[in-house]
Amino acid sequence: MNSRAVVLQERPVGMPKPDDFAIITETVPDPGEGEIQVQNVCMSVDPYMRGRMVDRKSYVPPFQIGEVLTGGAIGRVVKSNHPDFAEGDYVNSNWGWREAYTSPTEGIQKLGEIVADPSAYLGAIGMPGMTAYVGLLEVGALKDGETVFVSGAAGAVGSIVGQIAKLKGCRVLGSAGSADKVAMLKDELGFDYAFDYHDGSILQHLREGAPDGIDVYFDNVGADHLQAAIMHMRQFGRIPLCGAIAQYNDTEPRPGPNNLAVAIGLGLTLRGFIVSHFNHLADDFRKDMEGWVTSGQIKYKETVYDGIENAPDAFIGLFTGANVGKMVVNLN
Amino acid sequence: MNSRAVVLQERPVGMPKPDDFAIITETVPDPGEGEIQVQNVCMSVDPYMRGRMVDRKSYVPPFQIGEVLTGGAIGRVVKSNHPDFAEGDYVNSNWGWREAYTSPTEGIQKLGEIVADPSAYLGAIGMPGMTAYVGLLEVGALKDGETVFVSGAAGAVGSIVGQIAKLKGCRVLGSAGSADKVAMLKDELGFDYAFDYHDGSILQHLREGAPDGIDVYFDNVGADHLQAAIMHMRQFGRIPLCGAIAQYNDTEPRPGPNNLAVAIGLGLTLRGFIVSHFNHLADDFRKDMEGWVTSGQIKYKETVYDGIENAPDAFIGLFTGANVGKMVVNLN
Repeated sequence: MNSRAVVLQERPVGMPKPDDFAIITETVPDPGEGEIQVQNVCMSVDPYMRGRMVDRKSYVPPFQIGEVLTGGAIGRVVKSNHPDFAEGDYVNSNWGWREAYTSPTEGIQKLGEIVADPSAYLGAIGMPGMTAYVGLLEVGALKDGETVFVSGAAGAVGSIVGQIAKLKGCRVLGSAGSADKVAMLKDELGFDYAFDYHDGSILQHLREGAPDGIDVYFDNVGADHLQAAIMHMRQFGRIPLCGAIAQYNDTEPRPGPNNLAVAIGLGLTLRGFIVSHFNHLADDFRKDMEGWVTSGQIKYKETVYDGIENAPDAFIGLFTGANVGKMVVNLN
Repeated sequence: MNSRAVVLQERPVGMPKPDDFAIITETVPDPGEGEIQVQNVCMSVDPYMRGRMVDRKSYVPPFQIGEVLTGGAIGRVVKSNHPDFAEGDYVNSNWGWREAYTSPTEGIQKLGEIVADPSAYLGAIGMPGMTAYVGLLEVGALKDGETVFVSGAAGAVGSIVGQIAKLKGCRVLGSAGSADKVAMLKDELGFDYAFDYHDGSILQHLREGAPDGIDVYFDNVGADHLQAAIMHMRQFGRIPLCGAIAQYNDTEPRPGPNNLAVAIGLGLTLRGFIVSHFNHLADDFRKDMEGWVTSGQIKYKETVYDGIENAPDAFIGLFTGANVGKMVVNLN
């Protein structure tokens, strides 16, 4: 069987371009002993992948030029030579950026019974949702009724951060990159205050939306957002550092916040994390999040591109604000 | 009785100058009912006082022009109208920057039995020592055997940080501002590696002194030191943010570290604090530190200026590197 796949053709410099990627066709072999063959249903594009396109030491090794990219994908088993996997089983793997694959089963999780669209397991009930969950509740040590600000609030992680915070009785502020996204945050996701960060001073918005200051700032963005938030934190506030999408395409290092010394007197905590630091909470997360999704307490938003040939555009779109909620590429 | 005292004559712009201060003579009244009259033995000058000379909101209110400054001082009771205080008692107060005072007893602590020079209760066994203790053990969550880097290592706080870390079986690196200080750190205080930060790249020194990286960076300095340390932290490293003396005299905000995003993948924690956030540990601290000082496990270093008229120079000297260990002004 054949499968189209996306290879990294050039390392992007600054904003990624379509020409940095190429579509190839691979032959997918029949599964050997202990292997399974999987047809991907949908694949994920995520901001962290930008970092892996740079040839440097990081928390995940860099992608190599000319090789097929990898990333989260949900698929269905079409042939199985492994006793634990049956035809039709949904599986979650890191073998995205391709339509199909044959592989040993290490690192591949059976989804079991699912309570939402398969693609939700790439988003709200998947890695971005768990990032929101552990970042807010563990790293951010959120307490009921606090005031929370999340940047990139219309994105895959931010949209879940805001909704979990609302579930916990918090006042929730969010920033996003367009008027439509701001309206969605307020009208559909229940944010108490939302603003377009292109529109005026971030600090002024924070003062308006949180007159008494911020207890938890969930940082997806870095740069100006971080500096403004530090300026408006309450004593003993926490800042989970989750991402810095404003800076991922920088070609030169960008100066950091000029007001870190504010953290001294206020006793602020800035703490970086990635979701895999909290793998021990995966079962708790899935149970909680499936419950919240099933009950309608958490809505998941998706932007869906169709076909592997559009995966590069979907990825690039993460940095131009093309997505509302989780960006997903449908491979059906 | 008369007492000389130091008033703030002008708010310093940039580096403080002698003319920003003036010496006046006050009359100290006899103590009224419930009051005590105290002759100060020694007073403290501390970097945090620079922040109070600026007219802005901070964790302590600003000093006012034309008023006598305040700060830590150890004195002896000369007249008492309070049943809990007797002539000759040593007391710790915030009525420094003056030779003597009369005051109600609120906010004045009797030292009780002392095991070291009175001035040690302004340093190793006082606020700077407790800052080191809570910053390293609580905020830094130090574990035995880790690798610790402290900047401003020859200062009142840094010199204690390094010695506590050695007590806990750690590898200890320190930076200071002169060859003499570096020699003192290595030869007298047992640092494993020390360097003059004027001498080459800080990051290169950290790589040499801690080939496997740093678990706890105790930041007294901010600026370049912080950026270099972030670059060389180990996974899940902690950075207590204690001070930013490199920046206290800046007249414009200075850009922060350009590599904060490194904290994400490594799961680093940067946490600001001031000693008063941990007042509940004061008794534990005094017991531990008096034990360590008595046993000789911790040495306290002091730089002593004589006479209230030299207090402004002592204070200014904090920013020019004039002190080794705690800067104290003798008022005997």
